[in-house]
Amino acid sequence: MSGIPRTPPLTVDIIIEIEDSIVIIERRNEPVGLAFPGGFVDYGESCETAARREALEETGLEITLGGLLGVYSDPARDPRGHTVSIVYTAHAKGSPQAGDDARRAFCLQAHEIDPARLVFDHARILADYLKLRIDHSTLSS
Amino acid sequence: MSGIPRTPPLTVDIIIEIEDSIVIIERRNEPVGLAFPGGFVDYGESCETAARREALEETGLEITLGGLLGVYSDPARDPRGHTVSIVYTAHAKGSPQAGDDARRAFCLQAHEIDPARLVFDHARILADYLKLRIDHSTLSS
Repeated sequence: MSGIPRTPPLTVDIIIEIEDSIVIIERRNEPVGLAFPGGFVDYGESCETAARREALEETGLEITLGGLLGVYSDPARDPRGHTVSIVYTAHAKGSPQAGDDARRAFCLQAHEIDPARLVFDHARILADYLKLRIDHSTLSS
Repeated sequence: MSGIPRTPPLTVDIIIEIEDSIVIIERRNEPVGLAFPGGFVDYGESCETAARREALEETGLEITLGGLLGVYSDPARDPRGHTVSIVYTAHAKGSPQAGDDARRAFCLQAHEIDPARLVFDHARILADYLKLRIDHSTLSS
């Protein structure tokens, strides 16, 4: 395809619910810190496939995708350079086992997650997720 | 940033509502046909900024973004190669004036749009948009 400008590299991140907890990873690579599992989308791969693949690689979990939480594209969101992330919710069963870029993988309840320890813009993503959960619980109550 | 795989080029498309109509363009370049306005996201530009810029370039309209309709990433969705599109709804006032990659820009009511004349996966995007409108009207009735 000719005439394509340079576009920001595309990533996916996944908020994986296991019962009433959320899966968090400790990153092996820079920026080091806590994050939701995720990674780059390969050319020729849909975002949904990338989300399932990255979740499996980093946490060992076979996830069932829920919905689209949002698209995060602030040019300053990633200290390595501009990336755009498609963020999904998902659920899984079992316990996460760290793999690939994840040094550790573990479950926390949402209120136990310290936003200050999350890298990239994942504190904002967490806030959006919590708002969605509150909105849904309001709708269904 | 090192170690980044090749990721699919990123685009935005916008369903622009003007009163009870939707803005459609006739594409100047391949694939030729009808489409929602849109284009590639520049590196260093947020998706929302890209959507406002592309709408202005192709239709002359200053849009107000509504919400995120979806993310379309099927590797077969674009005959030129794999692209991923972030699709927004928006509204505007006035009349569209074709510019840039658009040969013509005009308004149609949703039911007047022939899905068979839409290029890329824009027939699917239209179907998702119509489903969203029906869901919203059901919620508010």
